[in-house]
Amino acid sequence: METLKVIKIGGNIIDNANVLSNFLVEFSKIKGPKILVHGGGKLATKLAQQMNVKVEMVDGRRKTNAETLDIITMVYAGKINKNIVAELQKNSCNSIGFTGADGNTIVSVKRPIKEIDYGFVGDVVKVETSVLESLLSANITPIFCAITHDNKGQLLNTNADTIASELAIGFAKKYQTELYYYFEKNGVLLDVNDDDSVVENINKEKYQELLEKDIIADGMLPKLNNCFHAIDQKVYKVCIGTSKMLYNQNSKFTTIHG
Amino acid sequence: METLKVIKIGGNIIDNANVLSNFLVEFSKIKGPKILVHGGGKLATKLAQQMNVKVEMVDGRRKTNAETLDIITMVYAGKINKNIVAELQKNSCNSIGFTGADGNTIVSVKRPIKEIDYGFVGDVVKVETSVLESLLSANITPIFCAITHDNKGQLLNTNADTIASELAIGFAKKYQTELYYYFEKNGVLLDVNDDDSVVENINKEKYQELLEKDIIADGMLPKLNNCFHAIDQKVYKVCIGTSKMLYNQNSKFTTIHG
Repeated sequence: METLKVIKIGGNIIDNANVLSNFLVEFSKIKGPKILVHGGGKLATKLAQQMNVKVEMVDGRRKTNAETLDIITMVYAGKINKNIVAELQKNSCNSIGFTGADGNTIVSVKRPIKEIDYGFVGDVVKVETSVLESLLSANITPIFCAITHDNKGQLLNTNADTIASELAIGFAKKYQTELYYYFEKNGVLLDVNDDDSVVENINKEKYQELLEKDIIADGMLPKLNNCFHAIDQKVYKVCIGTSKMLYNQNSKFTTIHG
Repeated sequence: METLKVIKIGGNIIDNANVLSNFLVEFSKIKGPKILVHGGGKLATKLAQQMNVKVEMVDGRRKTNAETLDIITMVYAGKINKNIVAELQKNSCNSIGFTGADGNTIVSVKRPIKEIDYGFVGDVVKVETSVLESLLSANITPIFCAITHDNKGQLLNTNADTIASELAIGFAKKYQTELYYYFEKNGVLLDVNDDDSVVENINKEKYQELLEKDIIADGMLPKLNNCFHAIDQKVYKVCIGTSKMLYNQNSKFTTIHG
């Protein structure tokens, strides 16, 4: 089975033009089929401020109202996504920018209103791989931003980590899929203040052990649950660390496996 | 030879949500391979005002400086393009949004500075059809906004009429291509104030005749030159008129042919 790498980058890469540019050079060098998923970083918040759009908060989280969705669509699918695609072309990495609406690739449902109304936020219900498969076969790299649609005409703001894992899961039958989450830490750390204290391998038993010892930080919990969900759904492995894991053989990072 | 329809819509359709929505329903019904090209309408200007971005004018035209290019990328490739794609999916018309950077489909050069510096404006130099052809064969409709790239990492603002004609020309070897320019008038009018005075067929001789009689209004000149350029490059026919020509058998419009 051929390997497919699904790589998710966040604000720590996107928000710095030089870091992003260097990352894209390394990303372009990866052989074989690959998909890039990017979040939005701080640009959307900045644009909202420039436009004087008030951020509605619900339960400490930003609500995606219609104005915010417009901003997200402009920043994620427009500015960030298209500049990434243009830079990749420069690096001779042929790519096409995607939301879940494009090619009907990722369908989600608007999150039902229970106690909290998150607004135009989508929970993924279906990944359609056929269009993407034919592009991957033609050596074209899909670049996903964190937007999906409900197949009824509505775009929806969707968590980029989830998009990455759902894509990896969707391709698990066709490829040996590897999922890479790049963020600011070297992975799961035994000591949050010690970048070298990386837990290099985590399976379910190790995870339970770390949970019982209270070693998993709050912010890591949803990330790791997301990883194990992917592993349960036949994703081959999930790696968490800085972008160094892409090109530095000696870098430490966390690998999650079944 | 199979027919490919390349349809370009402008501000008079894009700027009105209901008109756009109705158009997209009719567009979805068109059988056979098709490509949609859209301009940006008034939204970019509106966003520039909201963001307090000053519009730099050169020779009576807006200069595409870096800030303006960002706005155009956000509005054209983000908000407008992705909402069109989402609506088409609702209508069961599978589509993917494109700039010229995506799939390296349209390469342009930054317009050289002579007397006037237009900024980040691109003149098309190459259309690469292979990726688009495979999508068209899979019954997927490319939706182009008016942005290209220089294949060196730079996005470029590019005239939507030109993108439409260059795409039609690029496909002329593979398909019998038909190019449709939708705008606010019924086509070329003998009397600008009489919507019924449509010149229904124009070939080169007729064009000369109309020019000599001063019947071609100033705004139509570049449009018609663009049409004849396409005809010279083996585009089968070019039609100019309102979107009625798409679905109303009795509507009048102008057809340009060799």
